[in-house]
This record gives sequence, structure tokens and C-alpha cells, in this order.
Amino acid sequence: MSLALDPAAQDLLFREAHTVRTFTDEPVTEEQMQAIYDLVKFGPTAYNQTPLRVVLVRSPEARERLVPLMSDANKPKTAAAPLVAIFAADNEFHEELPQLLPALPAAKDMFYSERPVRERSAGMNSALQAAYFIVGIRAAGLAAGPMTGFDHAGVQKEFLDDDHTPLMIVNIGKPGDDAWRPRAPRLAFDEVVTTV
Amino acid sequence: MSLALDPAAQDLLFREAHTVRTFTDEPVTEEQMQAIYDLVKFGPTAYNQTPLRVVLVRSPEARERLVPLMSDANKPKTAAAPLVAIFAADNEFHEELPQLLPALPAAKDMFYSERPVRERSAGMNSALQAAYFIVGIRAAGLAAGPMTGFDHAGVQKEFLDDDHTPLMIVNIGKPGDDAWRPRAPRLAFDEVVTTV
Repeated sequence: MSLALDPAAQDLLFREAHTVRTFTDEPVTEEQMQAIYDLVKFGPTAYNQTPLRVVLVRSPEARERLVPLMSDANKPKTAAAPLVAIFAADNEFHEELPQLLPALPAAKDMFYSERPVRERSAGMNSALQAAYFIVGIRAAGLAAGPMTGFDHAGVQKEFLDDDHTPLMIVNIGKPGDDAWRPRAPRLAFDEVVTTV
Repeated sequence: MSLALDPAAQDLLFREAHTVRTFTDEPVTEEQMQAIYDLVKFGPTAYNQTPLRVVLVRSPEARERLVPLMSDANKPKTAAAPLVAIFAADNEFHEELPQLLPALPAAKDMFYSERPVRERSAGMNSALQAAYFIVGIRAAGLAAGPMTGFDHAGVQKEFLDDDHTPLMIVNIGKPGDDAWRPRAPRLAFDEVVTTV
């Protein structure tokens, strides 16, 4: 193995980690979410735009509004997870850029004056941050159940606004009984990587 | 700290890791790239679609074709990096789905029969995988310099085809002199996370 990361960390983050569909009742605390954020906030994005925004669905009332918007297969998982997080892209992220990119405050107007450009950039960069966040959930000793099967327009209307596009919804908690399916196959290196 | 991941691994992957702009001459080997891929291939994507494809630019001839397609600020970095990787989304990823998702081989036709749907899905999921890959580069004790500033249509024409959309280009190697700028600020937890 040519990796500097120790094998236990490799297992925790990737090799032994799984997308889970059942959870124990153990709650996910605000302190855990803070610790995850304080780690993964350092992951790189273009011009440090960091467009990911997160809505934590903690109240029973909010959970009741969310579950009907999930696909049928995702309803019971979302109803039962200790914590559910809505990941969204902030299409107006450029408003924060002067603060986030003090080396080039003009980037806000140089690159991001047009909304369609911002939407494309926020879509890609919030997906990068979603992946860092999934890694961070695992770094906290928790498991993630990311889902894209939901009524995106409905979730945007019910929990977000016109400036925030939902990206995925993630169940978070400790794995429960029969929490994951057998690992699905992955493509071989040579099927993914070519050299020129 | 509420994290299970040990602090050295937190530093390696996030806290002490930086986007780099200079590198030493030490080469990045095929074995290192294999080890990175064999770790990050396990990162989750929707329906295990794993649409990321990677072109490693190793020959001087290919490097000479790539550098002029980079933005001016990225040309010298891309010319000097030990290894340059083009990350792309495979918009025809559904062809591999029956192999990748044996639990639901019908997903290929149920969800992904239309090209625009595939392009959106490949864009988001290849970005997730790009983030896992950046984490993996750091796990290998290397540094990444991801860039979106390049002629996307030109790179697609020169190195890819109509079915593969370039996502980012990543310089890879050991950090050199003055390799990074001071860390830019990050948003506070309360600016990113709301609770309902």
C-alpha cells in the first residue's frame, strides 16, 4: 500500500463504510455536527466559494413535512433516522465571496455576475462539499444515508427558497440492524483511468 | 472533539492540507494512483453509478497539448506539476449500471434512458467522486491543485469525446516552495447550518 493514511482511518472513511438504511435510536448531537463541519469546511472549492448550505431537520413537525416529499423507498428510512439533513446549493454564494476570498474580492463581479454561471458553479462545488461532508460524518463515527430520490421542487418550496437548490438529503446516525446491502462492485482502475 | 478519526488523519486530509500551486520534482507513480483509486472507489454515488473518468497526462507531448488550454494563471502550474489528471463525467455511465448495480439492473432503463437526465446525474455524482479523489490524493501523502479555469470545450475536443464532459483538472505531487497561500476564511457553522 502506497498510502500515508493509516489503515484504520482508511477503513473508517472508505473501506468499511457503507451507505446505511437503518439506524439505532442514538441521537446525533449538535456538538457532533459542529465537529464535522469544523473539519470538512477546509475542503477545497473553486475560489473558496463554499456554496453548500445545510438544513438540519430536528423537530417532529419538520420531519412530518419532509417524509411525504421523499420517494416511497426513502420514506421509511427518512422517518426513522436519528437526524436528517437537507444539503442545498446557495446560488447567491457570490455575496459572501469578498469575505471568503480576501486575496481577490473582485471575483464576485469578475466571474459570478450572472445567475446561470453561479448556478452551475454552485451545483458542482456544493457537490464537492457534500462529499467532504459524507466523509466527515464517517470521521465522526457515524454513518450517512445520502438520497437523491425526493421531490426536489417540493423540498425547495417547503424548506428552502428560490436561491437555494436542493442537492441531496442525508440520513445520519449509528448503523442499526441489517444496515447495509452487500457491497456492490466497483469499476477496475483500467476502466476508469486512461493515460496519455 | 467529537470525532472518531484520529487527529493526525484529520490534519492530513483537511486541517493541514492545502490546494498547492508549486511542486517538487518527485514523480507520482502508477502504484500511488492505483492505491488512491482502490481507496476512493468505495465512496458512495447514486445507484452506484460512479461516473467519474480520469485521464492521466503523463507524456510530454500530451502536456504540451494541455497547457495552452489552461487559463493564464493555471498554465505555469500545469506545465510544472509532476502529474496532471483530467477529471471527467461519463454521460453514458448507464451502460455499466447492470454490472455496478446487480440488485437493480433495470435502473439503467428505469431512470437513465434520457441523455439530459444522465448529464445532470453524471455531473453531480462525478463531482462527489472528484472530492473523494482529492481526499484520496491527500491520503497518499500528496497534494492536489484542482482547477476549473481552462477551456472546457477545448479539453473535451482534445482529450475526451462527446460522451465525456470535463469537470476539473488536478495537479498532483509533493508540495514545493511557497506552495500555498495563507488559509482563506471559512463560513461559521451558523452561517451554513440552520435547524428546523
